[in-house]
Amino acid sequence: MDTYKPFRFDLLARDGRARAGRFHTPHGMLETPVFAPVGTQATVKALTPAQLDELGATLVLANTYHLYLRPGDELVAEMGGLHEFMRWPKPILTDSGGFQVFSLSDRRQIDDDGVTFRSHLDGSQHRFTPEKAVAIQENLGADIVMVLDECAEPHDKAYSEIAMMRTHAWAKRSMAARTRPDQAMFGIVQGGVFPDLRARSAEFIAAQGFEGHAIGGLSVGESKQEMYAMLDVVNPILPADKLRYLMGVGTPEDIVEGVRRGVDLFDCVLPTRLGRNNAVFLRSGARLNLKNAEFTRDDRPLDPACACYTCRTFSRAYLRHLAQAKEMLAATLFSIHNLHTLVHLAKDLRAAVLRGEFEAYVAGLDIQPGNQTETSPAIE
Amino acid sequence: MDTYKPFRFDLLARDGRARAGRFHTPHGMLETPVFAPVGTQATVKALTPAQLDELGATLVLANTYHLYLRPGDELVAEMGGLHEFMRWPKPILTDSGGFQVFSLSDRRQIDDDGVTFRSHLDGSQHRFTPEKAVAIQENLGADIVMVLDECAEPHDKAYSEIAMMRTHAWAKRSMAARTRPDQAMFGIVQGGVFPDLRARSAEFIAAQGFEGHAIGGLSVGESKQEMYAMLDVVNPILPADKLRYLMGVGTPEDIVEGVRRGVDLFDCVLPTRLGRNNAVFLRSGARLNLKNAEFTRDDRPLDPACACYTCRTFSRAYLRHLAQAKEMLAATLFSIHNLHTLVHLAKDLRAAVLRGEFEAYVAGLDIQPGNQTETSPAIE
Repeated sequence: MDTYKPFRFDLLARDGRARAGRFHTPHGMLETPVFAPVGTQATVKALTPAQLDELGATLVLANTYHLYLRPGDELVAEMGGLHEFMRWPKPILTDSGGFQVFSLSDRRQIDDDGVTFRSHLDGSQHRFTPEKAVAIQENLGADIVMVLDECAEPHDKAYSEIAMMRTHAWAKRSMAARTRPDQAMFGIVQGGVFPDLRARSAEFIAAQGFEGHAIGGLSVGESKQEMYAMLDVVNPILPADKLRYLMGVGTPEDIVEGVRRGVDLFDCVLPTRLGRNNAVFLRSGARLNLKNAEFTRDDRPLDPACACYTCRTFSRAYLRHLAQAKEMLAATLFSIHNLHTLVHLAKDLRAAVLRGEFEAYVAGLDIQPGNQTETSPAIE
Repeated sequence: MDTYKPFRFDLLARDGRARAGRFHTPHGMLETPVFAPVGTQATVKALTPAQLDELGATLVLANTYHLYLRPGDELVAEMGGLHEFMRWPKPILTDSGGFQVFSLSDRRQIDDDGVTFRSHLDGSQHRFTPEKAVAIQENLGADIVMVLDECAEPHDKAYSEIAMMRTHAWAKRSMAARTRPDQAMFGIVQGGVFPDLRARSAEFIAAQGFEGHAIGGLSVGESKQEMYAMLDVVNPILPADKLRYLMGVGTPEDIVEGVRRGVDLFDCVLPTRLGRNNAVFLRSGARLNLKNAEFTRDDRPLDPACACYTCRTFSRAYLRHLAQAKEMLAATLFSIHNLHTLVHLAKDLRAAVLRGEFEAYVAGLDIQPGNQTETSPAIE
């Protein structure tokens, strides 16, 4: 297919390796760096689209595996596609389903042509090939679609190479299978925690002509240093004029470290998953558990520096009461706060890059460093 | 105490026995007839105050029994009272806790002084007297507080009379115990399904000088005809210049029949409880269960005549997907629709009374009549 004109990436500024840019899609422009909330089943859990919009979200990610199984990609297509179905008029990205297949099913069987697996819902048998993953995503109709890849255990070098080679072959087949000129397709770099594999993978994927490049297989429990080292290998190889997407990442620390290393796009279920477990993070990455008794009479907002609906409106004492009483509203309010924190962290990092003050801004965040990356559960 | 000036009820118009009025409170005016959503634990389940406001709610009810047990009325008072705690700036009504005590605990022991019961949360023992129920509600700080009453099985005449006499004695003690001039207190008429008891009770309660009058012990599973017959007995006795509150009612049909018989105020958990069970009602009272397969490809809104956020935004097909996928957003969206339906039904009945077209308006609703009233669960 010819170049996809709508998906131009404008690199507006650099500060060190940190970047500020714009990515154009048929449903509007993304200002990067950007954090994308995850709407696994065509809904960001516990939030209306109006609340998502109010907290500043632009791009939303939805999961191909889940939507293929329920309600079915053909039904979504019949209802006008994902934007119309879930009533999110801004850009949407769908993953390929690969990560869920490899995470959810211990009865999967992978071969060079594709992967056979059983549904976690009813045990029924299904098969994804690169072509099938493209066809499903064309039915779903997101602005950005991902190639099917194989996510291997990141510390097994021999298998990481096999999975990487398969991922490369599938990337070519995915490019050949696409038919919709209104969807961008992103290739995915694999290679575990091995610099030589990652470099080979970045070179291969960069040569395929994708509209953007993703770094997969990270934030799966490896050390932070391993993840950062892989970004240091991959990003200098990936072309500067294409968007870079670090899949499944978001803590405040990892977003800062990713942007510092040239990443433009992040997504993660963590903010909403934490929110449903009564936990919130501050912009520094520090976490509060609102079930703790210390908040019983605390009349301050969650984060006095935060401008989200939750922080503008409620006291910690009230939020703790909702958590103790197991009220659904707790999940909504904590998810709003956590997503707002990451979405606006990305926006503010962007503004700092544009001002040429990235490092000074980051120093002021007083980020609390961690050791291990957090695994992203494949089912929220 | 002297008359509570802020709580004037202005009777603006009558149409038959249906009324349109205004009730003034320190947190704003209520336009009656009005339907009040229930916020049991200081939150209308699954909704933010912003969503409640947007759907047109004015008065919200909160439960004294629940808030006394958790987080405690003294904590709520410390945090500035219920309006500040739950961030609802409009009028709030608290019940006395009596209905929950009688419904939730089979280890309650009632005597003429009060009732001893065990917490449904931890089994701890507590005691409510009329004075204690007033003191708790003064801590909570609602605009309208209710007297402690005894809710008896409505078909046992001998016991209904005992419970009624106790309710009357407690009404007098409640009036004597109140100390806050910024709270209205409503007395409660009891007497089961017995016209002579109801008439005696209405006469007694009407003579006590309350700022409004409630009709209790109905909508507990008796027949619709029994409930309507009691309204026909009680409302002509209750003074026309005071607000009338039919506790624990709403379905569309019961609101129409209540307004037709001179009721001004309703509350019920039904719209939010149904919402959490994927059921919605139309204004006619007809119900849809959104888990049904018939909605799989239905691109219409829940109710094409409804202007709520849910109906303005989503298709039945999407809502059915949320219900099937057990997404929390389903409860939020169905609750918004159900509450909007009842709140706006009450508003539109008011407008019809003001135009002198109540019966014509009701005829156009095509209400589907039922047989039994629905019991209001004491725990949502």
